[in-house]
Amino acid sequence: MIVVLTGGTGGAKFVDGLRQLVPQEQLTIVVNTGDDLRWWGLSISPDIDSILYVLSGLLSKERGWGVQTDTFFCLQAMARYGEPSWFKIGDRDLAVHLLRSQLIADGKTLSDATDEIARRMGIGARILPMSNDRVETRIQTLSGELGFEEYFVKRRYQDEVFSVRFAGAEQAEPAPGVVEAILSADAVILAPSNPVTSIGPILSVLKIRQALRETSAEVIAVSPIIGAVAVSGPAANLMAATGLPVSIAGVAQAYQDFLDVLVVDAVDTEKGKELEHSRLRVHCTNIMMRTAQEKLNLAREVLSQMACEATAQSGAQVS
Amino acid sequence: MIVVLTGGTGGAKFVDGLRQLVPQEQLTIVVNTGDDLRWWGLSISPDIDSILYVLSGLLSKERGWGVQTDTFFCLQAMARYGEPSWFKIGDRDLAVHLLRSQLIADGKTLSDATDEIARRMGIGARILPMSNDRVETRIQTLSGELGFEEYFVKRRYQDEVFSVRFAGAEQAEPAPGVVEAILSADAVILAPSNPVTSIGPILSVLKIRQALRETSAEVIAVSPIIGAVAVSGPAANLMAATGLPVSIAGVAQAYQDFLDVLVVDAVDTEKGKELEHSRLRVHCTNIMMRTAQEKLNLAREVLSQMACEATAQSGAQVS
Repeated sequence: MIVVLTGGTGGAKFVDGLRQLVPQEQLTIVVNTGDDLRWWGLSISPDIDSILYVLSGLLSKERGWGVQTDTFFCLQAMARYGEPSWFKIGDRDLAVHLLRSQLIADGKTLSDATDEIARRMGIGARILPMSNDRVETRIQTLSGELGFEEYFVKRRYQDEVFSVRFAGAEQAEPAPGVVEAILSADAVILAPSNPVTSIGPILSVLKIRQALRETSAEVIAVSPIIGAVAVSGPAANLMAATGLPVSIAGVAQAYQDFLDVLVVDAVDTEKGKELEHSRLRVHCTNIMMRTAQEKLNLAREVLSQMACEATAQSGAQVS
Repeated sequence: MIVVLTGGTGGAKFVDGLRQLVPQEQLTIVVNTGDDLRWWGLSISPDIDSILYVLSGLLSKERGWGVQTDTFFCLQAMARYGEPSWFKIGDRDLAVHLLRSQLIADGKTLSDATDEIARRMGIGARILPMSNDRVETRIQTLSGELGFEEYFVKRRYQDEVFSVRFAGAEQAEPAPGVVEAILSADAVILAPSNPVTSIGPILSVLKIRQALRETSAEVIAVSPIIGAVAVSGPAANLMAATGLPVSIAGVAQAYQDFLDVLVVDAVDTEKGKELEHSRLRVHCTNIMMRTAQEKLNLAREVLSQMACEATAQSGAQVS
């Protein structure tokens, strides 16, 4: 069983490659819920949705979010009626939000609702929200504290950020199955998602971070940074704002207490060598995912690191 | 001020004619809510929606319900995910349901929510639900008791009906403004809606029926029956099932305790003469509304009856 910790955008791309190589039944995806929001009275989980869509083959590859070929007629009507419309919900996309909202209104947890929706979409992988408790990513900017989607979508991450906090994290329990999945996994992969606001909220749930330290599974992270630049989105600014170097060193630092392998771009080969030590191996490859082939290649490279380690370990046991 | 009591289909057509002749600010529309339902977790008021759409010019004239040129992509996705899909919600239509559901979840009454939605749609007329209390039209058939939309839409009114009841009517209060509007109106018009399941639920709220008996305004009904046939829908079957003759006589009987003028089709001229008595005048004209011109003509005919009566009354006062 492979466990993937992920956010929405880069993580979903990575999962798109992975699902071509690993039967869905062998995948458990632990998803960030720090971006979750109430919108038009509905319960929206943007990162869970991206994972649902990528695993069911519905994700828009052009946009990187929402459903392919979706239309926005409901959104246009809402805007005409004076409702906020900066968070772009497509007509086909709405179905998942309606379904989740109804399941939650009927008393189901986010875990159970996610499970039910995944089943109805014909998804074989297990998708687990990081927590059923509300953990809210709050971006502290010069214009005040913003919810993540407000910072990211509405204000297009133009605000200067000085801090990030995860409201509710201290009290949050991991969702059922998350800790068990990490402890019993063959490998745990941290997708090339933003370490601050995509993986960060997951790690802010103390028992999840603890499980990553304790698991005997190899923990492999794919860097979302190449050189000093984020592959996409506001990762660089957010890393800088939270005191992390904007480089693969910053990624290694964010995960230092549990990371076994860091997969970085070939560009970072030299810097990778400097980072290696007795408990951290660095693997260099092409980590850009511009095409289906590149996604597949990256997934294969990451899986090969898992195989290496398993071989190395079994070798160690024999010797 | 003109008060119109109405359901969705025939009533909406009639209102479409009326709004061409009367400034919206002089219209108060009291709408049936017996068909209201929870659907996909949303608060749906089908007849209020038809009136919102006709008054804002959005009603689909082809279908007679929902928004013109609407698409059904969310509905198709819901069906794919195993949700019931017989109640046809369009993508643009969804906006009104989302808005209403949110307003009601925020603690607003159906009256206040309707008012707010109408304002946002730029509607000048006053739209009042008959009641903010739940009154549910229940159709008793050989296959068991059905909600109205289930009987009407899902099962296409094919079941044999033996009775109709309005669950909750005894305890229901009229929505704020309904009784006052009827008592202070210049005329009250009962639209050519089904007397059993469109106007019937409104009349089942005792204080509304009482206000119709007490008002000094002329009460004018437009027959939804021509000869022995309903202009559309299941009115004939439902009238028969509830013991009303399927004819203009049945319509007169349904409203006998408060009706002043019954507007019927020219086809029914002879029968109309038989129905007239000291407290009931029958006016014959073309009541079919196949074209915009026919809608306009019918509205004009109905308004002329109001004018006649006002003249007659003022004449009486002078003499």
